[in-house]
Amino acid sequence: MADRYKQILVVGLGLIGGSLALALQGFEDYVVVGGVRSRSTYEKAVARGVAQRVTFHPEEELAGSDVVILAQDPQGIMDFLRDNRERFRPGSLVLDVCGIKTAIMEAARCLPEEVDFIGCHPMAGKEVSGIDNAEGTLFRNTHFIITPREESTREHLDLLERMAAHCRFRDVVRTTCQHHDQLIAYTSQLMHVIALSVCDSEQLFTCMGFEGGSFRDCTRVAALDVPLWTQLFSLNAPALTQVVEQLEQRLHQYRLAIASGDRTQLSAMLEHAAGRKKQRNFEQARGDDVRVGF
Amino acid sequence: MADRYKQILVVGLGLIGGSLALALQGFEDYVVVGGVRSRSTYEKAVARGVAQRVTFHPEEELAGSDVVILAQDPQGIMDFLRDNRERFRPGSLVLDVCGIKTAIMEAARCLPEEVDFIGCHPMAGKEVSGIDNAEGTLFRNTHFIITPREESTREHLDLLERMAAHCRFRDVVRTTCQHHDQLIAYTSQLMHVIALSVCDSEQLFTCMGFEGGSFRDCTRVAALDVPLWTQLFSLNAPALTQVVEQLEQRLHQYRLAIASGDRTQLSAMLEHAAGRKKQRNFEQARGDDVRVGF
Repeated sequence: MADRYKQILVVGLGLIGGSLALALQGFEDYVVVGGVRSRSTYEKAVARGVAQRVTFHPEEELAGSDVVILAQDPQGIMDFLRDNRERFRPGSLVLDVCGIKTAIMEAARCLPEEVDFIGCHPMAGKEVSGIDNAEGTLFRNTHFIITPREESTREHLDLLERMAAHCRFRDVVRTTCQHHDQLIAYTSQLMHVIALSVCDSEQLFTCMGFEGGSFRDCTRVAALDVPLWTQLFSLNAPALTQVVEQLEQRLHQYRLAIASGDRTQLSAMLEHAAGRKKQRNFEQARGDDVRVGF
Repeated sequence: MADRYKQILVVGLGLIGGSLALALQGFEDYVVVGGVRSRSTYEKAVARGVAQRVTFHPEEELAGSDVVILAQDPQGIMDFLRDNRERFRPGSLVLDVCGIKTAIMEAARCLPEEVDFIGCHPMAGKEVSGIDNAEGTLFRNTHFIITPREESTREHLDLLERMAAHCRFRDVVRTTCQHHDQLIAYTSQLMHVIALSVCDSEQLFTCMGFEGGSFRDCTRVAALDVPLWTQLFSLNAPALTQVVEQLEQRLHQYRLAIASGDRTQLSAMLEHAAGRKKQRNFEQARGDDVRVGF
């Protein structure tokens, strides 16, 4: 086989895909190629030099790509896998970077045996989307969660570690897709449901001038990408509805305690929750951050 | 009457009182005196030069103080007003800086007619408390809410405006104590109930490595000062329980929509709430920030 350069194909140059393409520049001896659908993204990607080459036909790049990063929305990833399953290069590593993993890992079963698929979730984001907001520094000090298959090769896991280090992730956290989806329902999706629910209040517009940092922080993520989050919520419905229900119940308990006028009981509840948060801050500061793994 | 210097007395040198004492240094020709209870706060206040003078007996300073800032917790403020109502200087301005206003304005009715009382709420804070965390820059670019009495004098309102400008507040927002308490239940107290409720989950410790910015932001305020927040919640129970109940209902609606599998309905709900948040961001950026007033 003739010498050839190695190629990373990033399909979808939105906030995450665009930022990854930028962050991966200079990674070993890889060339980064970006795949886009819209003329506007194409032009911005070329103007900013987000990738060495940008194409409207990423499917034609699959045979020549050693690493393929699927950075579309979840439905886009599942469709792309199904439509192009025979085009991936044998021995290549394919990964996605969306916020749910079980449905994606399921969809990736359609790939031929010689193509390795590893689910990934960079725990980074912004409350704005699109290539305009992409930055090569987006992943610095954030967690990179991966959900490999049992048969994923050591070589590919090592490659992914090196890519993550190049992008300046804080660490690589390995887990199963089911575990990922349960925890992400709590740590991320629930935060978005809360922010949306708070913004549904009629007081949202009358309260201007009365908000402090906690209100800005809690509602920040409500201005979300609607099609994307509709998919993320829907594709993780069992885990998400469970954590929403638990939150409803806890809010109800606080409401009863506040309404009761029993300050001793209320104080005990606050002591319990505040103590947990302080304990967690302590563990985090001590660096006991990452607890999961196989 | 002989010439005398003017004096501001700050009773309580915790996070807010200590920060105000620091921020007020150099304000016109006023001397700032701090009142404390504990030996440890006394020593820190003296060491840091938080006030020109620090005393364990603030009640003895009342006759000589033109402005008194009550910066204890709500119960402490109410007790102090009741116990010292005859000691305040006639013509002086008394204010408090705690997070609820109706109960405080009610308690301040015990003061003699010649003493003006204006409820105040600097919309600034930290997730940590005490004089160790006090900073003269704490109030920069934050809202200073005031709830004057109808009979509060122009002279005192002007004085308060000048003090707020000296502390570098972003603006002074005038409203009624009832309106303040309703809005603060939503913008501040509810955020704390949410943070506590999220931290009550058993997943709090298993999710390490899976959290992004939204989780850190939403739970930040959970490590709260328990005695203080027990009072704040209890003294604003009617307004707070109402907003908690509304949030429970909205979460319930999201849960049903997510569980239903009807992506069109879910998408419409997300569009609605995200649109409101975007609209609000837009209005805020345009500077339509403060809407309230008499």
